[in-house]
Amino acid sequence: MKVAIIMGSNSDWPILESAEKTLKEFGIEVEVIVASAHRTPGKVHDFAAGAKDRGIEVIIAAAGAAAHLGGVIAAFTTLPVIGIPINATPLNGMDALLSFVQMPSGIPVATMAINGAKNAALFAVEILALKYPELADKLAEERVKMQKEVEAKEEKLAKLRADGK
Amino acid sequence: MKVAIIMGSNSDWPILESAEKTLKEFGIEVEVIVASAHRTPGKVHDFAAGAKDRGIEVIIAAAGAAAHLGGVIAAFTTLPVIGIPINATPLNGMDALLSFVQMPSGIPVATMAINGAKNAALFAVEILALKYPELADKLAEERVKMQKEVEAKEEKLAKLRADGK
Amino acid sequence: MKVAIIMGSNSDWPILESAEKTLKEFGIEVEVIVASAHRTPGKVHDFAAGAKDRGIEVIIAAAGAAAHLGGVIAAFTTLPVIGIPINATPLNGMDALLSFVQMPSGIPVATMAINGAKNAALFAVEILALKYPELADKLAEERVKMQKEVEAKEEKLAKLRADGK
Amino acid sequence: MKVAIIMGSNSDWPILESAEKTLKEFGIEVEVIVASAHRTPGKVHDFAAGAKDRGIEVIIAAAGAAAHLGGVIAAFTTLPVIGIPINATPLNGMDALLSFVQMPSGIPVATMAINGAKNAALFAVEILALKYPELADKLAEERVKMQKEVEAKEEKLAKLRADGK
Amino acid sequence: MKVAIIMGSNSDWPILESAEKTLKEFGIEVEVIVASAHRTPGKVHDFAAGAKDRGIEVIIAAAGAAAHLGGVIAAFTTLPVIGIPINATPLNGMDALLSFVQMPSGIPVATMAINGAKNAALFAVEILALKYPELADKLAEERVKMQKEVEAKEEKLAKLRADGK
Amino acid sequence: MKVAIIMGSNSDWPILESAEKTLKEFGIEVEVIVASAHRTPGKVHDFAAGAKDRGIEVIIAAAGAAAHLGGVIAAFTTLPVIGIPINATPLNGMDALLSFVQMPSGIPVATMAINGAKNAALFAVEILALKYPELADKLAEERVKMQKEVEAKEEKLAKLRADGK
Amino acid sequence: MKVAIIMGSNSDWPILESAEKTLKEFGIEVEVIVASAHRTPGKVHDFAAGAKDRGIEVIIAAAGAAAHLGGVIAAFTTLPVIGIPINATPLNGMDALLSFVQMPSGIPVATMAINGAKNAALFAVEILALKYPELADKLAEERVKMQKEVEAKEEKLAKLRADGK
Amino acid sequence: MKVAIIMGSNSDWPILESAEKTLKEFGIEVEVIVASAHRTPGKVHDFAAGAKDRGIEVIIAAAGAAAHLGGVIAAFTTLPVIGIPINATPLNGMDALLSFVQMPSGIPVATMAINGAKNAALFAVEILALKYPELADKLAEERVKMQKEVEAKEEKLAKLRADGK
Repeated sequence: MKVAIIMGSNSDWPILESAEKTLKEFGIEVEVIVASAHRTPGKVHDFAAGAKDRGIEVIIAAAGAAAHLGGVIAAFTTLPVIGIPINATPLNGMDALLSFVQMPSGIPVATMAINGAKNAALFAVEILALKYPELADKLAEERVKMQKEVEAKEEKLAKLRADGK
Repeated sequence: MKVAIIMGSNSDWPILESAEKTLKEFGIEVEVIVASAHRTPGKVHDFAAGAKDRGIEVIIAAAGAAAHLGGVIAAFTTLPVIGIPINATPLNGMDALLSFVQMPSGIPVATMAINGAKNAALFAVEILALKYPELADKLAEERVKMQKEVEAKEEKLAKLRADGK
Repeated sequence: MKVAIIMGSNSDWPILESAEKTLKEFGIEVEVIVASAHRTPGKVHDFAAGAKDRGIEVIIAAAGAAAHLGGVIAAFTTLPVIGIPINATPLNGMDALLSFVQMPSGIPVATMAINGAKNAALFAVEILALKYPELADKLAEERVKMQKEVEAKEEKLAKLRADGK
Repeated sequence: MKVAIIMGSNSDWPILESAEKTLKEFGIEVEVIVASAHRTPGKVHDFAAGAKDRGIEVIIAAAGAAAHLGGVIAAFTTLPVIGIPINATPLNGMDALLSFVQMPSGIPVATMAINGAKNAALFAVEILALKYPELADKLAEERVKMQKEVEAKEEKLAKLRADGK
Repeated sequence: MKVAIIMGSNSDWPILESAEKTLKEFGIEVEVIVASAHRTPGKVHDFAAGAKDRGIEVIIAAAGAAAHLGGVIAAFTTLPVIGIPINATPLNGMDALLSFVQMPSGIPVATMAINGAKNAALFAVEILALKYPELADKLAEERVKMQKEVEAKEEKLAKLRADGK
Repeated sequence: MKVAIIMGSNSDWPILESAEKTLKEFGIEVEVIVASAHRTPGKVHDFAAGAKDRGIEVIIAAAGAAAHLGGVIAAFTTLPVIGIPINATPLNGMDALLSFVQMPSGIPVATMAINGAKNAALFAVEILALKYPELADKLAEERVKMQKEVEAKEEKLAKLRADGK
Repeated sequence: MKVAIIMGSNSDWPILESAEKTLKEFGIEVEVIVASAHRTPGKVHDFAAGAKDRGIEVIIAAAGAAAHLGGVIAAFTTLPVIGIPINATPLNGMDALLSFVQMPSGIPVATMAINGAKNAALFAVEILALKYPELADKLAEERVKMQKEVEAKEEKLAKLRADGK
Repeated sequence: MKVAIIMGSNSDWPILESAEKTLKEFGIEVEVIVASAHRTPGKVHDFAAGAKDRGIEVIIAAAGAAAHLGGVIAAFTTLPVIGIPINATPLNGMDALLSFVQMPSGIPVATMAINGAKNAALFAVEILALKYPELADKLAEERVKMQKEVEAKEEKLAKLRADGK
């Protein structure tokens, strides 16, 4: 099980870190690449065209501004490409969101929320869980964990409100 | 291989038709459901919670306006959920797009372009191709077909321009 | 007289605090719940379906991002649901606003301004005042109080300007 | 049981008609007023200030463009005011939506979707149902009716798809 | 010569201060009022309806959020009303801008840029200059002064760049 | 009393016609000019610089797209310039609105609603009414006329609704 | 002198036709290519990488939706790339505009207005005029022609208005 | 080889500095001007009309808010004008972007990203490289340099991730 995380700039790493962390918690091997659709198009091409042969099964692409990275990778592979629009300009990520999500018919990029790194990882796991059933169990556990976190939050808030009185 | 297409209203069908058509071209069984996150929440719950057991592997959810359908389904299953925001209000689909794509951390919905039905189907195929390698070959053929279509368009345009002189 | 405030995350509490405070000033019992439409859908369902029987008369739902909480609750109850879109993503709350307000026909959610917690509480009071006439008198007093506050602000400004000369 | 529908221009009536129809189906008396916050401010004032004494319990205000009608009415009454932003300018109703929903703290206007007339009526019924329990039963029936409509749509679509083969 | 500056909240004063300062530099008497279209509608009405009789010739109205103040004043007077949309919510002033500028036909409000206090004052002076020709001369002087300021800025920049070498 | 209406293209005339009509109803002389800030900048300059000497007292400038006409004219005159953003591109007039209204400090352009031609004319009349008191009376009459129109609309609607039963 | 016009789909041709026409009026050779950054990435690469050697001096790229064509071409050539965002989705061309104009630092794409085909051609001519001075003279003539057109429009409007009386 | 950088205010210099730096790295002479389309229109006119005769070959214009500077300059010269929309108001540069990019047909301004100063310089170099072939070689070197920078970033990130373990 191997997922690649490719980003336009290492300045996006603080946002993307949670994607790698999440994938590793599910026991998935992660390859991290810095490559720009515009500044290193050859590298992006080589990465995308060779990804499948190197055992990569899902690609997560993150970029800000006129974020072409997802579309450019998807053009060279039929592996599922998940896009994370990064909030990197004064336009609050709306430019990256539209550059990712509005892909024309024929070449899909599955787009997550602006800066939605953790969800990109979880979605990659959901994809892989079709092939690797043990991941489905872990996903179910993760859901239970999330429920407990929400309940813990409620208790914490109840305490805060009780203290406030 | 089975994919479900669920939509909030049958008025969205003219847009979604191409998704079913595309999936069938790849030999994938398709289940089509009309259900509303708000008007028939019980049906949506039952569909989502039971999808995996009925053999569904990927869910495509389409809705317009405050499009909660994708998120509500994703809350009850760990199958991959692909969202198609439908342009169904005066806001040109921006409301549906943000309602789909801006999912909070924990429960991803992979969002396609506004009205992007065909890409939703192709992305479902890309997901399934990880498990069913024969689909990967068909996807590669589809790409070649698309290339030929673009070339045919160029020829058509060249003729049009030549005629125009 | 009982109003529930339900929020997707306790991180929204600093904004919502004023809603509880306002309701209590009107002598209304307040129930505060942390529950997520996506991470704890069962809890949301149970809350919404059982709210009326537990004596809740109005529900205030607050959420950010793709804010489905209001719609999901409204799907399971015919109690009035008031929505507060929370500014919780780079999109300045526009995503939450559209996710709340653009509800399709059939299931209304009465939407307040982004982060508009106090108005949500006041609107709940206006609703309850139809049934509990004593609240109407208190609302009239509140209006007088607001007028005096505006006048005090004018005096304060007049003083500031006089001092500035 | 009486609800007023007030609109800035009778050109909005084709959209608002469904609000009156819905209210009447619930057995609610409806008063329809054409008045402009800007062109007939005196009339709006007199309407709002006198509404309660005339037996009106909920006010539905509809307007397009810089839609001040809801806020101006809410300033003169503590009855619940429900706003319907009308799509009446090149900006697709976004101007009316923000003019309604972004009410400053102190004077709430409960905002519905752009052109969301039916939901405004249903929300008025939900409000009134707190005081008039028979309405709650009717609302529950309406929900059942809606579910059946969705199911009928699914059947219709199934037939359409079967015929298409 | 008298201009009124009316604002919804004294928290807007830091932005509006430059409007008063500019008007006074032109020798214009300034009246400053804090009044809210929603919280003190009676005060706004009395102000607007009586403005002309008190010698006010131009009204500058500033407000944020669903900024109805300009429209409400314009409804009660035929004096020119100049609007300043204030950036006071997460929406960066776009809500206030549309609430001011998109006035429906019949009752105009002349809208300035978001937070555009100085321009509101200058436009008031331009209006008054039609009646009081001495103001026209001062406006011409102001333009010359602005040109000199721009030239000074260029010199300052040239020096900065020279120093940087 | 003389007002100039200047537009970037005669294709805007169907929208602007009502401005001329309104001004003439108030007995104001109207000069109509077609000139483009970009294609005929010299003509715009000569118009703006000479407007005052030719007896023009208020200038109404209408343009679509990147609508610089208002700002360019205002740069060459201290006469009041009123801007009408025209909806002339796929962006629904938002481009023209921002190009008019967001004028930087120093040179104001009083902006009306998108396509708000009649209001531009009425605002010009309000400005002139400070100097020519007879116009103030006519404006008051116009307000009364508008009120009657609204009342006639209400009657018409009442009849329509009665007939519909 | 040779300019290439490359477009994602021949459905854009009705908009782009004026670009070719304009270039030919200036005596510039035009090469027209249909190629998609996503469906025929190899063709786009070969076009871009070989453009200079084939004598192309300026490239005009037009695309709608998530319009990556301009950026992808610019990544493979240092020839000037001019982008035309096409209005091809429900988002009115805003998606294409941001996908073109918000290029990250390093690889510029000079962006024109949405559907701004003629300006793209004129800008290409302005670029070429630096090297081919005869084009500068033609551009000056074009400006004179445009001025005459504006004047003709004014005359036409004057006649229309005179006839209307 | 000479390029002019003209800006509406010296407060934009921190953003524009990189444009001058980049141009100088390519050995291009740079002229820096502070001039406002609105406050010093005469200076802008004289600059634009005389630019060619002073040896300027490309003009870079930067402005925020209702950014008319690019259009006004382009109206007086047929030299290529490159626009940099500056983020200078609460609207995050969207006002400046639309004011630059949505130029009507006839007078193009080649628009860069919001605050995209370096790309403006690089595009100016690409233009000049058509005439001065030595610049083309330097541009190719610059591309190689950028590729190395991306690779260095990847190495840096790999190290960071390794250290983090």
